[in-house]
Amino acid sequence: MVSQSAASTSTPSELSTPINKTAHEFDKPTLDALLARRFFFAPAFEIYGGVAGLYDYGPTGSALQANILDQWRKHYIIEEDMLELDTTIMTLSEVLKTSGHVDKFADWMVKDVQTGEIFRADHLVEAVIEARLKGDKEARGVKHEEPEKEEDEKKKKKKKNVKSVAIKLEDSVVEEYESLLAQIDNYTGPQLGELVRKHNIRNPTTGNELSEPVEFNLMFESNIGPTGQIKGYLRPETAQGHFVNFARLLEFNNGKVPFASAQIGRSFRNEIAPRQGLLRVREFTMAEIEHYVDPLDKRHARFNEVKDVQLTLLPKDVQTEGRTELTQMTVGDAVAKKIVDNETLGYFLGRTQLFLEKIGIDPKRLRCRQHMANEMAHYAADCWDFEIQSSYGWIECVGCADRSAYDLTVHSVRTKQPLRVQQKLDEPKKVEKLDVQFDAKKFGMTFKKDATLIKETLLGLEKDKLQCIKDELANGKSSVKCADGKSYEITPDLVKIDPITVTEHMREFTPNVIEPSFGIGRILYSLLEHSYWAREQDKARGVLSLPSIVAPMKCLIVTISQDPELRAKIHEISRKMRRIGIASRVDDSSASIGKKYARNDELGTPFGCTVDFASIKNDTMTLRERDSTNQLIGKIDDVIEVVDQLVKGTIDWSGASQRLEPYSGVQDVEE
Amino acid sequence: MVSQSAASTSTPSELSTPINKTAHEFDKPTLDALLARRFFFAPAFEIYGGVAGLYDYGPTGSALQANILDQWRKHYIIEEDMLELDTTIMTLSEVLKTSGHVDKFADWMVKDVQTGEIFRADHLVEAVIEARLKGDKEARGVKHEEPEKEEDEKKKKKKKNVKSVAIKLEDSVVEEYESLLAQIDNYTGPQLGELVRKHNIRNPTTGNELSEPVEFNLMFESNIGPTGQIKGYLRPETAQGHFVNFARLLEFNNGKVPFASAQIGRSFRNEIAPRQGLLRVREFTMAEIEHYVDPLDKRHARFNEVKDVQLTLLPKDVQTEGRTELTQMTVGDAVAKKIVDNETLGYFLGRTQLFLEKIGIDPKRLRCRQHMANEMAHYAADCWDFEIQSSYGWIECVGCADRSAYDLTVHSVRTKQPLRVQQKLDEPKKVEKLDVQFDAKKFGMTFKKDATLIKETLLGLEKDKLQCIKDELANGKSSVKCADGKSYEITPDLVKIDPITVTEHMREFTPNVIEPSFGIGRILYSLLEHSYWAREQDKARGVLSLPSIVAPMKCLIVTISQDPELRAKIHEISRKMRRIGIASRVDDSSASIGKKYARNDELGTPFGCTVDFASIKNDTMTLRERDSTNQLIGKIDDVIEVVDQLVKGTIDWSGASQRLEPYSGVQDVEE
Repeated sequence: MVSQSAASTSTPSELSTPINKTAHEFDKPTLDALLARRFFFAPAFEIYGGVAGLYDYGPTGSALQANILDQWRKHYIIEEDMLELDTTIMTLSEVLKTSGHVDKFADWMVKDVQTGEIFRADHLVEAVIEARLKGDKEARGVKHEEPEKEEDEKKKKKKKNVKSVAIKLEDSVVEEYESLLAQIDNYTGPQLGELVRKHNIRNPTTGNELSEPVEFNLMFESNIGPTGQIKGYLRPETAQGHFVNFARLLEFNNGKVPFASAQIGRSFRNEIAPRQGLLRVREFTMAEIEHYVDPLDKRHARFNEVKDVQLTLLPKDVQTEGRTELTQMTVGDAVAKKIVDNETLGYFLGRTQLFLEKIGIDPKRLRCRQHMANEMAHYAADCWDFEIQSSYGWIECVGCADRSAYDLTVHSVRTKQPLRVQQKLDEPKKVEKLDVQFDAKKFGMTFKKDATLIKETLLGLEKDKLQCIKDELANGKSSVKCADGKSYEITPDLVKIDPITVTEHMREFTPNVIEPSFGIGRILYSLLEHSYWAREQDKARGVLSLPSIVAPMKCLIVTISQDPELRAKIHEISRKMRRIGIASRVDDSSASIGKKYARNDELGTPFGCTVDFASIKNDTMTLRERDSTNQLIGKIDDVIEVVDQLVKGTIDWSGASQRLEPYSGVQDVEE
Repeated sequence: MVSQSAASTSTPSELSTPINKTAHEFDKPTLDALLARRFFFAPAFEIYGGVAGLYDYGPTGSALQANILDQWRKHYIIEEDMLELDTTIMTLSEVLKTSGHVDKFADWMVKDVQTGEIFRADHLVEAVIEARLKGDKEARGVKHEEPEKEEDEKKKKKKKNVKSVAIKLEDSVVEEYESLLAQIDNYTGPQLGELVRKHNIRNPTTGNELSEPVEFNLMFESNIGPTGQIKGYLRPETAQGHFVNFARLLEFNNGKVPFASAQIGRSFRNEIAPRQGLLRVREFTMAEIEHYVDPLDKRHARFNEVKDVQLTLLPKDVQTEGRTELTQMTVGDAVAKKIVDNETLGYFLGRTQLFLEKIGIDPKRLRCRQHMANEMAHYAADCWDFEIQSSYGWIECVGCADRSAYDLTVHSVRTKQPLRVQQKLDEPKKVEKLDVQFDAKKFGMTFKKDATLIKETLLGLEKDKLQCIKDELANGKSSVKCADGKSYEITPDLVKIDPITVTEHMREFTPNVIEPSFGIGRILYSLLEHSYWAREQDKARGVLSLPSIVAPMKCLIVTISQDPELRAKIHEISRKMRRIGIASRVDDSSASIGKKYARNDELGTPFGCTVDFASIKNDTMTLRERDSTNQLIGKIDDVIEVVDQLVKGTIDWSGASQRLEPYSGVQDVEE
């Protein structure tokens, strides 16, 4: 099991004073109660009974999300001069057919033939077989191994819990089951169906038989317009909206790469059985960057700025050996040692590490896990996930993939639009090339509808790959692997490859795409766990130590009494703050100051101002810092200005302490 | 026809220097070309042929939209302490059944029985009958009236263009047609079907017969989860997401009204035949506020702050008399004279006027039009639309409606959740009331499933309405109008109403909801038209005089030559600006300075910095203001600071002129 006590030791970076947080056992039910009570989020249509996998964000959750997105926009779009996009959610089916989502974005499901209950086929087979193996061990009196591997722990969360029964199995069956589990991710739907029949797998609850596996596409489908003939899907990612606009984006950027497009928006996945709160939902906000780069030059102009950023890496070769230990390494070293494929990918890993730390993610619970070869999409060149550790285990929150030229190529082939970059060479160049000639008629008859794709692929190959094919053709045949994932056999009568010398003035290429893709809800939930702790004095009420740049409210304003003059004063102060853009909130209820501060801590509000009768006399108020509970005092307008600068991050608490006087007159925690 | 020359005289409020804009004929094709060339927006999936009513925003359009939304969030959510929400787009069908959308959010359509072509029934009948009347006039040699009424002009845009043929009609037919047109909005679907048959209306293009009208619901439908049994719709407005969360919001606000919730998000309407660019689309961004208020006290605490704001009003009684002249009036006067129903509605009219002016809408092309009695939803108490004038006529861009207690009541009745406010009275109060008693059994048998609704409605009525019903019952029968829009007849054997005296400690009520609802795409497009003009010297290239707070890019940075040192310098300056959050853009292409400035004007970028060899020597650069083309010069870091303050609005151009020296060395417009 994953250690959760680290949450209480994270320190918001803008605070320089020590924080009196106490180590404690992480208490998820208490956090969950806080998040519901303070309306961070709640099941959508709760008064109608709700629907699994759909959540609404309340005032605190919405403001936190808006602030995270605002920081994201500044960190990436503004600071890196990215081209922002806002494309439609409703997507023409043809677009997602081309991208492969219509055919491949699916899971296999089986139904209880009597009750109609639905299961994800692979998860159910795995759970039942694991339960049988466990029952076998119990029957054999074998204690099961401790500790279980983290990765398995993670998988289990996704699955239906199946109870084991102590029944001894034949040795050969145990062997067969173990081999089955080792390759559970590799079975096709029909193969899963065979396994269900062969091993008599049934609904664990009812004991009823199961249907044949049926493919269930995870996209929500709808129809556009009144005829019902234009099919559309709600996008499962924002990425395709970037790719179909590539030609306009390239023109906007004066025809040059590298450049990046960026988009923040909703996407939808109709999960078969969503669980895990905000971590697996049917509707979610993403922020995606598509960085277009010359395939022959993946350097990055600003690489130097991030080369010293420390990453926590879990490379693929370590995982392949069944190990999970993490390596600390700078971005510069990781690229130099070729652990990370190229500078641009390394640059985004570094920038993303900085972003996640800036908004308050605990770097000790953050790692970059590289995809293993069999995990990656067939077209991907390299892929790293930022995983954040929470009570649900290590969860992918940001994916950084090199998608190669896959998407632009398939859309270009399908629409016959040139989604390519033309680069004028500084001076004409004599080039030794391999010229590819086709027997057009024969080629067309052999490959029919696939002919164009194969032709484009061959014409787009680099010289050394082409040389390999030429060599193989000399021996009678070769094959071409295309963007659709298939290999096509070619023979010398179809294709001829000959060396030629040409003078080139232009170079033309399809850019590669490096894609950092952020799941905002997952980051937001992880941040809440990382920010949560409880004071020694009052364990029932938690504190959310959110950095002030993302905290939903920046400042609470209270009085020590219900006196009308004091009440009028705090509303006046709040109005002043709001007018200069500080999200401040008045609490003029009859609760005690201690209770008001405790509420405030639960909302993650970093600063609190208190007004008393001295304030009226001297025009002063106090300023409290949430984590340390330290207090300062000063003229009301000075305090407002200090809060403004604290919120903008131009000063920290020690800076504030130089501008205002220390104060220790008000009791913080209720007796 | 609407005058369009006003566009060239609007002055961005932050600039105090005179602007050398010239009056000119508004040239929509040139603006459209600019918007496409500079990728403000484009048809979605354009490389796949596109789909009507779906548009993608490019880098300029997205940034403009993000800036408008940022201003909106500051103006309303932050400054007014509203509770932000972010609720799901995918909505459970039951929710929209209760709100009335499943039954009523529909248009009637007819089909060409042979080709299947689809028309909106009312629009087609109207277009065909109008064409026949026009043909009749031609046959009679009558010149048709000039000018046509604006409102008719607007309607025509929505309709299929039908050619008139000069055929004389019987006088009685002309009379019948004219009466038909006058009430075209009042026909039900079956009545439209009768009209089609009676007047032999056919597809104007093919001459084929038309089907009976069929109701077409404008919501996109989908299924949630793998069983296909949970029906969902994409929300047609964000409002229902507020109402279903009312109980949590009220608790968050310590049980007190008034307060407001606010949400920015996408909504969807599956229009039968979308036209008019961004003004009638199938997917769009809205920003909605739901302000919850005591029905007996619709005053607003900050009303004084907006009472002097000038509005341009078109009240309902003026329209009812067939007139369209506008009245200038302050918010304070409009409420005092009861032209606007209450302070809270008046407050939002004032705040919205300020918001629209702040982002650059020309106040001379902005009016508040009140809904006429037959236009309003049956439950609405008062409704005003902010209409913005563009080349499409006067278009509704913001609706401000008093939705009364309708939504909260219907959701409360349906879910049996109390969506009500409990208010403790300062001291117990003896109240003369009317007590309503039901014959439960008889009442239930008479009204069946509607019984609860009618009961709740009766129990929720104010005393004077109840007295009317009591008086009517004394005469044998009365009726109750319910939130479902129907009236139910009641008799003395079902309901008894008697005066009683009670001592009350609490007051309980369903709040009324005042809803300002913003169509962001419509505002954005109107703003582009209002900001567009062309200089005398170069009519082919336009200028977008967007206020700097919303302009997509804030500053362009260029050099006078392609010298490597100068190029490095401008990238360094841009990076500095971006790091402090100024969206700046380098143009290091080989175009002339004049051409670069012209591009910049098309993007609406308010400021431009130019670096030359003197810059390297003296560490200076020049600063150009887009509208006046005036230039200043200063130390690079000083200029950056001035730009920062200009963008934040803390100084204006005359303030900048005091901080930097005048400059007149670089030719602005290409010779």
